[in-house]
Amino acid sequence: MTTAHHAPGETRPGGRTARTRKAVLTAVFEELGENGFGGLTMEKVARRSGIHLATVYRRWRCIEGLICELLTEVGSEVPLPDSGTLSGDLRALARSIAALYGEGRVRRLIEAVVSAAARDGQVASVLRTFFDERLALAGRMVQRAVDRGELPANTDPVQMMSALGAPFYYRILIARRPVDRDLADSAATAVRAAAHAGAYTKRDGGPGNGTSPGG
Amino acid sequence: MTTAHHAPGETRPGGRTARTRKAVLTAVFEELGENGFGGLTMEKVARRSGIHLATVYRRWRCIEGLICELLTEVGSEVPLPDSGTLSGDLRALARSIAALYGEGRVRRLIEAVVSAAARDGQVASVLRTFFDERLALAGRMVQRAVDRGELPANTDPVQMMSALGAPFYYRILIARRPVDRDLADSAATAVRAAAHAGAYTKRDGGPGNGTSPGG
Repeated sequence: MTTAHHAPGETRPGGRTARTRKAVLTAVFEELGENGFGGLTMEKVARRSGIHLATVYRRWRCIEGLICELLTEVGSEVPLPDSGTLSGDLRALARSIAALYGEGRVRRLIEAVVSAAARDGQVASVLRTFFDERLALAGRMVQRAVDRGELPANTDPVQMMSALGAPFYYRILIARRPVDRDLADSAATAVRAAAHAGAYTKRDGGPGNGTSPGG
Repeated sequence: MTTAHHAPGETRPGGRTARTRKAVLTAVFEELGENGFGGLTMEKVARRSGIHLATVYRRWRCIEGLICELLTEVGSEVPLPDSGTLSGDLRALARSIAALYGEGRVRRLIEAVVSAAARDGQVASVLRTFFDERLALAGRMVQRAVDRGELPANTDPVQMMSALGAPFYYRILIARRPVDRDLADSAATAVRAAAHAGAYTKRDGGPGNGTSPGG
């Protein structure tokens, strides 16, 4: 998983470049957990990570670049289940999201990325690509359910997986309250019932509803 | 979308104070539409509105204060339907939200408020209070549906109305794609089916799921 800020020097995953990256991303994550996005600066990240400020600037250029790379890293850690049933898959995925997003520093990372995207078109583009990729991967569980006859054949995976994720972002960004397992189970139950009711039907054979990766 | 309504504590609704407020909020809305939140400053708002910078600072103190007041104004304009049926109410409300949030400058206002909340605890508190109040008002349609026997008696209005809103914020903040009427109809269909499937059931007689206004 790479980002627009991927550095050309990153050719030795186990080497010094990888260690620098890990130290810097860990420092960003810890700063977010302790102080949030408001006071986050390249200087603080350099100090905490023990990496030279010039190196941090050369490699990531700005705090937004760091935030994007951390999101890609952390978000990719959510496992995509294959339990054999749709309800099992939905519940497992929703609970994994809840476990991750229940962490204060992950909430703050989400806030930071959304804030940065509001101010910076390049960040917005990275954010959109990241979620498109994740949705495409998660959508496989919808296709498997269609293949097993558990969902209508014209169910749109992107719409359905977007609907599974939406309550978590609402809780973090709008309601501003804790993410918990109850939210996960509610989201899984909701999206399954809604899919059966035809809420996520493909339109005109296309992916529909403006959520197409090319839209 | 106008900004003609007056604030609580506004002693002369038609007077100079009201005109100042209207000019300033209109200028903020126009700046958001043209240039987004990234470059928004008190100076630009003062210049555009024709109101003295000192007056703008004295009354709102910071750009975040202005953004919050504009959200309250614009968000309160979404009508709360009472069509006689749950599906009619859900669809009408979702379509009203879609019509409002389909405007570029309203998207940017949402982005601006969420960004400001991520950096500033006072904004976060205003945002939370605003959405709590709106959810409580919108929740009346859930209670009416329960009274008519259209929904299980233990349906939680706050959970259900949060779920109706969530896809719009996801579309704007995460998917970063246009809000349209298809999204509204999908959200209305989804939330109704999910409510029938028990996704928004009150827990232990309380409002549940961490969405309680007091939580």
